[in-house]
Amino acid sequence: MAGSTRIALLGATGSIGRQTLDVIEALPGLFQVVALSCERSVETVISQAKRHRPQLVAVSDPAAANAVASALAGTGITVESGSDAVIECARHPDADIVVAAIAGVAGLRPVWEAVRAGKRVALANKEPLVVAGHLIVAEAERSGAHLMPVDSEHSAIFQSLLGQDREAVLRVILTASGGAFRDVPEDELDRVTPAQALAHPTWKMGPKVTVDSATLMNKGLELIEARWLFGLEQHQLDIVLHRESIVHSLVQFVDGSVIAHMAQPDMRIPIQYALTFPRRLARVEPPPDLAALGALRFEPFDQERWPCVRLAREAMARGGTAPAVLAAADEVAVARFVAGRIPFARIAKLIEEALAAHRPAPGDSLEALLEADRDTRRHLEEQSTP
Amino acid sequence: MAGSTRIALLGATGSIGRQTLDVIEALPGLFQVVALSCERSVETVISQAKRHRPQLVAVSDPAAANAVASALAGTGITVESGSDAVIECARHPDADIVVAAIAGVAGLRPVWEAVRAGKRVALANKEPLVVAGHLIVAEAERSGAHLMPVDSEHSAIFQSLLGQDREAVLRVILTASGGAFRDVPEDELDRVTPAQALAHPTWKMGPKVTVDSATLMNKGLELIEARWLFGLEQHQLDIVLHRESIVHSLVQFVDGSVIAHMAQPDMRIPIQYALTFPRRLARVEPPPDLAALGALRFEPFDQERWPCVRLAREAMARGGTAPAVLAAADEVAVARFVAGRIPFARIAKLIEEALAAHRPAPGDSLEALLEADRDTRRHLEEQSTP
Repeated sequence: MAGSTRIALLGATGSIGRQTLDVIEALPGLFQVVALSCERSVETVISQAKRHRPQLVAVSDPAAANAVASALAGTGITVESGSDAVIECARHPDADIVVAAIAGVAGLRPVWEAVRAGKRVALANKEPLVVAGHLIVAEAERSGAHLMPVDSEHSAIFQSLLGQDREAVLRVILTASGGAFRDVPEDELDRVTPAQALAHPTWKMGPKVTVDSATLMNKGLELIEARWLFGLEQHQLDIVLHRESIVHSLVQFVDGSVIAHMAQPDMRIPIQYALTFPRRLARVEPPPDLAALGALRFEPFDQERWPCVRLAREAMARGGTAPAVLAAADEVAVARFVAGRIPFARIAKLIEEALAAHRPAPGDSLEALLEADRDTRRHLEEQSTP
Repeated sequence: MAGSTRIALLGATGSIGRQTLDVIEALPGLFQVVALSCERSVETVISQAKRHRPQLVAVSDPAAANAVASALAGTGITVESGSDAVIECARHPDADIVVAAIAGVAGLRPVWEAVRAGKRVALANKEPLVVAGHLIVAEAERSGAHLMPVDSEHSAIFQSLLGQDREAVLRVILTASGGAFRDVPEDELDRVTPAQALAHPTWKMGPKVTVDSATLMNKGLELIEARWLFGLEQHQLDIVLHRESIVHSLVQFVDGSVIAHMAQPDMRIPIQYALTFPRRLARVEPPPDLAALGALRFEPFDQERWPCVRLAREAMARGGTAPAVLAAADEVAVARFVAGRIPFARIAKLIEEALAAHRPAPGDSLEALLEADRDTRRHLEEQSTP
């Protein structure tokens, strides 16, 4: 396998993790998996480990780690448990690329460590940049780490900015499919169920991201992420509704030009690009056939209808610890909604209350940001109402 | 004016020439016009010369040159006449950029000389690459000349390829508005008038290009031009119908990605880009507002309905002198149609007959190509039927 690119995959058993392994298998000989991490999906990670033969498997849940260790005994694969083991994957000395596919704020510290270690980080996990973008960007500058976006929108922006006059960027426009409830009248949103929220019209994604798509918080988090990835000001970031999910984002320039990226809504395309950049390698799926599609439709995005986007913009404007509060409250609220404990419209309200209750702080260290995260979760736990 | 970029403008009084001067006037201090050429639009070139104070004005028609020389006497501006004077503009030692905006095959030799002189050539004139692409590309390689496309489609492709993996280009798709007769039933095309052909639905252009848009020969010529500008094979070139003229072209890559360029249909945008590249400078016109537009529509392009595209593809496949015959016959046929001498559908037939009558030759020198051009015009003149 001399010459192949070595991958550490964090969050191997989630949606992005599994699709990353699909991409790697579809390009035989190019990549070698040196480390895998997961939380507790024992069966999945065992089968992944047997197939890809990494040096290290990190399982953050200790009981699950024991089960994985037993199953892999005698294979020569090291199995470790706990969050330190995940970090060991993130800074694995043999990894050229760290794929960060952990869901939520749990991915922050592993991403931070991969950046500190100067890795190329294929970033599918939104929360690290949302919570700690200012620190991560500065640290990447210092360490030489390279952040490669995996989100379809950010991959599109990255590809649309290549070779362009960066000083001349007028505005970056993220496309939004609108999520599961794009056509549900506002006064009916209180009656939608978790099952309905989990049925995304165009994308196959994990449950947290899919509910975030239904609330449009996903788009709010992406605005913050785009700010840090591409060095933009808030007024340079905009959203347009685009139901087909074919145009993944657009960059407007001051000369009146727009560069846009299109592809089928298939996460394996941006995952592969993050792994093969600057090259593009052939895939079986053809590019979208515009004549067959007939039209690409765009509609104004109504920020009033989707309070999560407004809240994300407010947190971005406040900066410091505010985005950490936003991300933590969103995780708590989405978990409660999925568990059937709160109605859909309560998600945004809980986040708004958490932001209102939070005392702003500069958030100038990872510890300060993680403390804001813990405070928010504790505050929401202590509330008498859900 | 130290530090400003110096421009020689060939074809100053045509549509692209006038818009080039609009762009230059809108960016005061950045550009200096050192030479202007025109054929015989006396009044226009006099006023352009008084405003821009070039060193040299070349007027190819001798009588017109006399009139221009009288009007500019005492200004210090040199006025010369004849095609050699135009070539003097094209290789003017003080010109950093030569804007090639002459219409038709008449622009071939001036472009050739600008390329030989190693200039940056902002190329609005399709025929030079159509007729002599193989020679011009090789000569540019030798001289260090840089071809910057001005056509909206080729500017779009150029911009979409910047920074990309050129080995991974699957296909380049030119968008076609469909021209003036896109909705006229095929059996009614024989009755359309020159006035109807000259009313383009989205673009303001010169008469030859506008009629070429109505026959779709314009798109055929653009296929050949794209081949040489971007080093593509014929099977990598495709056309899609896009009525709004907002997406100016698309590049498909082997990984399923598409990069597209959009802008309002305003030639001043690609003209400015060709002059300011690699920078993009602000313009008053904003980028297209997709939410306000609502939709971008695409339809399959029907090559059977538009024989000129088929003829252009055949000429491209034959190579050698065949594209020179195509371009010459198209000029003769369009002129006859505009003069009311032949019906619209006869344009393609005349071109087809000229190609069929032509004895293929390798066209390995500019002289051989210009001879094929002259032979074609003579052959068509000698025909008893128009």
